[in-house]
Amino acid sequence: MTKRPIIIDTDPGIDDAVAIAIALFSDELDIKCISTVFGNVGLDKTTYNALRLVKFFGKENIPVASGARKPLLRDIIDASEVHGKTGMEGFDFEDPDMSLLCQESSIELMRKIIMESDEPITILPIGPLTNIALLLSTYPEVKPNIKEIIMMGGSTGRGNRGVMSEFNFCADPEAARIVFHSGLKLTMVPLDAGVRALITKDVSEHIKTLNKTGEMFYSLFKRYRGGSFETGLTMYDSYATAYLLQPDIFKTVDVFVDIETQGEYTSGCSVVDLRGFLNKEPNTTVILDTDPEKFNEWFIQSVKRCC
Amino acid sequence: MTKRPIIIDTDPGIDDAVAIAIALFSDELDIKCISTVFGNVGLDKTTYNALRLVKFFGKENIPVASGARKPLLRDIIDASEVHGKTGMEGFDFEDPDMSLLCQESSIELMRKIIMESDEPITILPIGPLTNIALLLSTYPEVKPNIKEIIMMGGSTGRGNRGVMSEFNFCADPEAARIVFHSGLKLTMVPLDAGVRALITKDVSEHIKTLNKTGEMFYSLFKRYRGGSFETGLTMYDSYATAYLLQPDIFKTVDVFVDIETQGEYTSGCSVVDLRGFLNKEPNTTVILDTDPEKFNEWFIQSVKRCC
Amino acid sequence: MTKRPIIIDTDPGIDDAVAIAIALFSDELDIKCISTVFGNVGLDKTTYNALRLVKFFGKENIPVASGARKPLLRDIIDASEVHGKTGMEGFDFEDPDMSLLCQESSIELMRKIIMESDEPITILPIGPLTNIALLLSTYPEVKPNIKEIIMMGGSTGRGNRGVMSEFNFCADPEAARIVFHSGLKLTMVPLDAGVRALITKDVSEHIKTLNKTGEMFYSLFKRYRGGSFETGLTMYDSYATAYLLQPDIFKTVDVFVDIETQGEYTSGCSVVDLRGFLNKEPNTTVILDTDPEKFNEWFIQSVKRCC
Amino acid sequence: MTKRPIIIDTDPGIDDAVAIAIALFSDELDIKCISTVFGNVGLDKTTYNALRLVKFFGKENIPVASGARKPLLRDIIDASEVHGKTGMEGFDFEDPDMSLLCQESSIELMRKIIMESDEPITILPIGPLTNIALLLSTYPEVKPNIKEIIMMGGSTGRGNRGVMSEFNFCADPEAARIVFHSGLKLTMVPLDAGVRALITKDVSEHIKTLNKTGEMFYSLFKRYRGGSFETGLTMYDSYATAYLLQPDIFKTVDVFVDIETQGEYTSGCSVVDLRGFLNKEPNTTVILDTDPEKFNEWFIQSVKRCC
Repeated sequence: MTKRPIIIDTDPGIDDAVAIAIALFSDELDIKCISTVFGNVGLDKTTYNALRLVKFFGKENIPVASGARKPLLRDIIDASEVHGKTGMEGFDFEDPDMSLLCQESSIELMRKIIMESDEPITILPIGPLTNIALLLSTYPEVKPNIKEIIMMGGSTGRGNRGVMSEFNFCADPEAARIVFHSGLKLTMVPLDAGVRALITKDVSEHIKTLNKTGEMFYSLFKRYRGGSFETGLTMYDSYATAYLLQPDIFKTVDVFVDIETQGEYTSGCSVVDLRGFLNKEPNTTVILDTDPEKFNEWFIQSVKRCC
Repeated sequence: MTKRPIIIDTDPGIDDAVAIAIALFSDELDIKCISTVFGNVGLDKTTYNALRLVKFFGKENIPVASGARKPLLRDIIDASEVHGKTGMEGFDFEDPDMSLLCQESSIELMRKIIMESDEPITILPIGPLTNIALLLSTYPEVKPNIKEIIMMGGSTGRGNRGVMSEFNFCADPEAARIVFHSGLKLTMVPLDAGVRALITKDVSEHIKTLNKTGEMFYSLFKRYRGGSFETGLTMYDSYATAYLLQPDIFKTVDVFVDIETQGEYTSGCSVVDLRGFLNKEPNTTVILDTDPEKFNEWFIQSVKRCC
Repeated sequence: MTKRPIIIDTDPGIDDAVAIAIALFSDELDIKCISTVFGNVGLDKTTYNALRLVKFFGKENIPVASGARKPLLRDIIDASEVHGKTGMEGFDFEDPDMSLLCQESSIELMRKIIMESDEPITILPIGPLTNIALLLSTYPEVKPNIKEIIMMGGSTGRGNRGVMSEFNFCADPEAARIVFHSGLKLTMVPLDAGVRALITKDVSEHIKTLNKTGEMFYSLFKRYRGGSFETGLTMYDSYATAYLLQPDIFKTVDVFVDIETQGEYTSGCSVVDLRGFLNKEPNTTVILDTDPEKFNEWFIQSVKRCC
Repeated sequence: MTKRPIIIDTDPGIDDAVAIAIALFSDELDIKCISTVFGNVGLDKTTYNALRLVKFFGKENIPVASGARKPLLRDIIDASEVHGKTGMEGFDFEDPDMSLLCQESSIELMRKIIMESDEPITILPIGPLTNIALLLSTYPEVKPNIKEIIMMGGSTGRGNRGVMSEFNFCADPEAARIVFHSGLKLTMVPLDAGVRALITKDVSEHIKTLNKTGEMFYSLFKRYRGGSFETGLTMYDSYATAYLLQPDIFKTVDVFVDIETQGEYTSGCSVVDLRGFLNKEPNTTVILDTDPEKFNEWFIQSVKRCC
């Protein structure tokens, strides 16, 4: 079986760490590179975290490159209140080998990987979409060799950063809009899907016993502020990996989505036209729901495969 | 017991008809006037409908006056797809006595009623807020004698007219914003509350047997497109009356609310800051939930009191 | 000859004082009322100033009524840096008889005057357009009996309050937009016209010798910050009166005008489509230019007619 | 004398052709590359035109590379009504050697030139700013080696594409905003400067006699719709070259400039805060005026140096 070639664009971040781990140890995926972006914390920290993760997982052969340090047009925001000051608070990682960081920008690296790949590439953005917007705008020639973009971001209802805006899209609304206008095959894993698939306390405690990755996750989860350790954690970015690997446990719909960039209060709001008010052609597959038990079962099996 | 003096501002509309009927026959309320506004259908029709209703109920002593024919700044929209071409399709009302329509504008009439009342007046707006915004802007002297405004409108999540906008606020976002900035005591009954309190098919069929009002409602309900007769109807405007008369069956929260007026896609979105993202003082009591059984029971008892 | 019936809506203000004086002493005009609005200074001061002016001019028979205390949707701004703390700094007026202030709102008074007039009324707004927007929105029945609106406001180029926004429109952009969408016959006297018609130092010193009004103007002019006493003063509001009385000294064009209400930097900008970029029907006569000498001559003759 | 290294970013376009010619034949400038962008006409045509120009001028050693085909977020607009269908209507150029077009994107080429240059590079953008915004966003590492950006675009007053928006900024307001927020040394040559420096009919006819470049210009000018051949042509882009080479014939001011991206009518408006309304630090040198005679004289001398 050929493995599916994947680029992960990420701002680790605790739920990013989980999404990356599972992707790295999947038999079905060939992770071509990890591209970092500002987001949950600043770019220097997300890049440092990505390098800490590949070291921890013994996957230092995977190229890590860093991209955008700030949004296209807006001031930078972060989510350190959720992920801790370093972005991955709670576990004592070894210092990474910084010399492994690619010299070139991750935008340039993505371009090369995509242009040189025999097989179309799938991009998995789980942070703000600035890198992807710059890739598509600066190098539109990559588009024909992108299979699809499966991204964590947006919401079909309320937000987690603005009243109506989810963090990743709120962090760079114009970048998100560029992606939604790209004409590429898009799948969006919104906040709401996550609330249906909490990682329960039982599961958190179970994975601790599985292996060193499970132990590490457990330590991070104790500090994570995405929901509550006691009543269930929202592991948003891992839903994107889950959908990539196990799409059949998700309920989806094809609809028109655009990003509000003009609102006083609502910039970054993902306008998911479930009821067809706007009379536009669908441009996105949106995850609506999942089976919480199946998701938790998949999660446990996925952690088992890690080191 | 003194009855509580009330002004109803409305765009009947089938759910408006229900809200008005129950208010007119309540022992606790003294309906000072019915003010009409464009909305579900045009102003001439909503006014005609209001006059048909007072005739049907034998309440032609209640003054009916008409107000704004269009939004402050935007083009007019309507909801005739929900309420039928006349706004109250499905029942064969008698022609009203048009000479009963007040000569003066409902904005002027509201001003007089409020200024002359010994007791502070409660306003129950269940259509677009244009009349109320004009009243408060043109005659700010009324404010000290307004007890509170209990309005049907907005949503804590998605919309029913725009993707993120409820009909009443979407029909005149600037008017809604003026009301939310008024400094008055405000209660907002949003769409979401309604979904928790559907009028079931059983109840619809039961009220038909109660009296001529019940029969009339049943006929309207058969044609109403707010939900489905079979699986449950959303009787939005009647929740505002229900909250006025039976507040203990509702769960509420005091939060900051503002209205988006600048969005490309989200104008008219009610920004209900349940999680305190905006760090603003609460200005509104928002209905979050109700007990569907208690609501249906209250509804039946209320219809029983009608003629 | 029948005199032309006029309503002045104003926020005095030094240039307002000039516009009012000339209108009050014109043989051709019948000033039906002076309506005050917040603007150059707060409403209490602009109203106080209007009463000081009618007393000074011996015209206490002219009704003065006060209207809006603040913009429809925005926070209040003022121009006290131009007109001084009281709005008419520089001359020691007698205290006015406050009992002369109409009990009713100027919006209500305007409605009555217009509805009862045999002849269509001309409105001369020389402050923010809040009162006029409320009049037209609350009482649209007045429209058929409004002959035209000749207003001072806007700019065909840059602004004097925002980079691209003139003070009167910037103070309430939504009100201005309501007026420009009213369908009434509109004439706009923009900032730019004013720069072509400065009141020169010579003229300022000449009018001082004419009569007590000239003396009073001279005192105000010495303190006025609209341009420079030495090199020429911009007497914006008086151009509106001048156009009313002496239209032939102005060059005009009929074009489409709308008001920007959505800009981050440009709210209140008057979008005067001189080159037809927007392909819309003309809705406004815009003053483009005047003859400075003829204007100054007209100004002197007008002051001569005052007391 | 070392020549000053320059990158020209352009959408030729007749006035672009003039600006490029003069730059190519200047002794003081070392043109490192010509980068093309969509604008006056589509990207394929502007690129074709750039190659036609280097062939005509015998400068096929200058690299030509193409960049953005469309704005970051908006739909494409063009100015073919001014420049003719091909963008350089009026002269019969030879077909260019398309194989000379760089394989890599002009954004990538600019990055390399800047990173490898010993001396800081000056960028001369005379079309929409999309390429420059992408360069600065994708490769922020270039910033320390950019000496300055001297761009044709914007207006201190009215526009030539929107009522308040100049073509280059209107074509991609978000890109323009990115450039103005870049922190780089910026000079803006606005529309208004151009109106003060028309190329007169006499001069147009004189250059025809000078050399083959002059003849070619004359032919283009006869078809150009930027002003009128009879009463004077606005050769906007050439003012940017003129300022680069002969800054002393221009009057400038250092002010804060930003780009409106939120307006309904005013998107792309350059907000040039000449009077300090916004209380922000200056970020741009704006050309205010020039001496028309000196400009025409400089123009003639510059054409003389061409082939």
